[in-house]
Amino acid sequence: MFMTAIDTHIHSEGRSVEDLKFMAENGIKIAITCAFYPIRPSFPETLIDLARKLTEFEPERGEKAGMEIYSAVGIHPRCIPPRWDKVLGFIESYSGYVAIGEIGLEDGSDEEKEVLKAQLQLAKKLDVPAIIHTPRKNKDAILKKTLEILDAVSFPEELALIDHNSVETVKVVLEKRYWAGITVQPGKLTVDEAVKIIEEFGDERLIANSDTGFSESDMLAVKKLYDACGNERVVRRNAEKFFKI
Amino acid sequence: MFMTAIDTHIHSEGRSVEDLKFMAENGIKIAITCAFYPIRPSFPETLIDLARKLTEFEPERGEKAGMEIYSAVGIHPRCIPPRWDKVLGFIESYSGYVAIGEIGLEDGSDEEKEVLKAQLQLAKKLDVPAIIHTPRKNKDAILKKTLEILDAVSFPEELALIDHNSVETVKVVLEKRYWAGITVQPGKLTVDEAVKIIEEFGDERLIANSDTGFSESDMLAVKKLYDACGNERVVRRNAEKFFKI
Repeated sequence: MFMTAIDTHIHSEGRSVEDLKFMAENGIKIAITCAFYPIRPSFPETLIDLARKLTEFEPERGEKAGMEIYSAVGIHPRCIPPRWDKVLGFIESYSGYVAIGEIGLEDGSDEEKEVLKAQLQLAKKLDVPAIIHTPRKNKDAILKKTLEILDAVSFPEELALIDHNSVETVKVVLEKRYWAGITVQPGKLTVDEAVKIIEEFGDERLIANSDTGFSESDMLAVKKLYDACGNERVVRRNAEKFFKI
Repeated sequence: MFMTAIDTHIHSEGRSVEDLKFMAENGIKIAITCAFYPIRPSFPETLIDLARKLTEFEPERGEKAGMEIYSAVGIHPRCIPPRWDKVLGFIESYSGYVAIGEIGLEDGSDEEKEVLKAQLQLAKKLDVPAIIHTPRKNKDAILKKTLEILDAVSFPEELALIDHNSVETVKVVLEKRYWAGITVQPGKLTVDEAVKIIEEFGDERLIANSDTGFSESDMLAVKKLYDACGNERVVRRNAEKFFKI
């Protein structure tokens, strides 16, 4: 029988309660829902209320579906509002989340770098994990810039989960002693590629997820990975350790 | 074969793109998505960005699903933020929506009444239709208060859709010459009850919807109503007229 798995990167807001139920019934009984706003917000207040929604409403909706939902709050590089420092001020005073995320660089602009740096400094100060996105385009080059910022703020290796790795980037991320997210999803990794990554690099610091959310996506990706390789660390135990859940 | 139907009251935000696709494939090819924020927002700015999201992102997501999504913007009585007049100022200057909604009274407090009144005055001034919610609890008493406010602002009958009617309230609403929404959904009307309402009161000013959204709900309610009675006016033509779509 399939064990309980943790999907460490979803956008539960883009999924109906029936979808969450379907995931839970298929063994994905725990998920981390990550902050993202699907248009660029005009106001920092929108992301503050989003953080409240993710930590108050989404776990409640998860409960109705038989799924335990934990939240990550923060500013995604594709939705940086004006006066974004207000969002960070709120997060610092707030609780109820398990990580800062998803954060990271998308195009690598100066503004994105500044926002990422400030969020990493906050995560380090608060001693909470950070979920760090890498984009589909120019993944290698953007990862390089991301690593420079992590270095610049002396970000603790054990608090950084660099996500959406390719076979190439996972090597770099693990060499730097960060946690590496493997996202099984059309357009990202196939189940076979993910299994090969586990075989090649070992399961010590790999964490699986689906990134399911606002777009059409495979909600059972983490289950399928488990079915293919039977690895409990990658689909659950590493996440428990990293997120302290 | 089932014709094209319009679901005039959904919260598309609570549905995945696959769900919207499922609805469209079953003939519900047009929907009106109504404003609602599932926690009480701390800031009016949140509802301004929500209006932008509903008019920019949701129609785009609908398009991917083969569904034409139109938006209603406004302040639901369960999510009135502080300084709510800022939201109305934004709506007045904005476009891209087909109605103000969903608005209305939930408990009938003085604040709710004030917000409803201001929104009705705005809808009248802008000459756009209003989708007016009635609550599950104390429906008759709250409808009475709602009608008093409509009277107080001399709201044009042809612009008011009073929604979620029971067999009792639909009579009152139609006597006042407003449009009456019939919501087919567990906890609201059954298909049989909706059919009886159509038979008893005629189809001239009845408009069907499902209210599907953040909670577990029957997405095909409007199709099921059509299958049971074959009435095109209630599942499409009246909505085209009311919303001018």
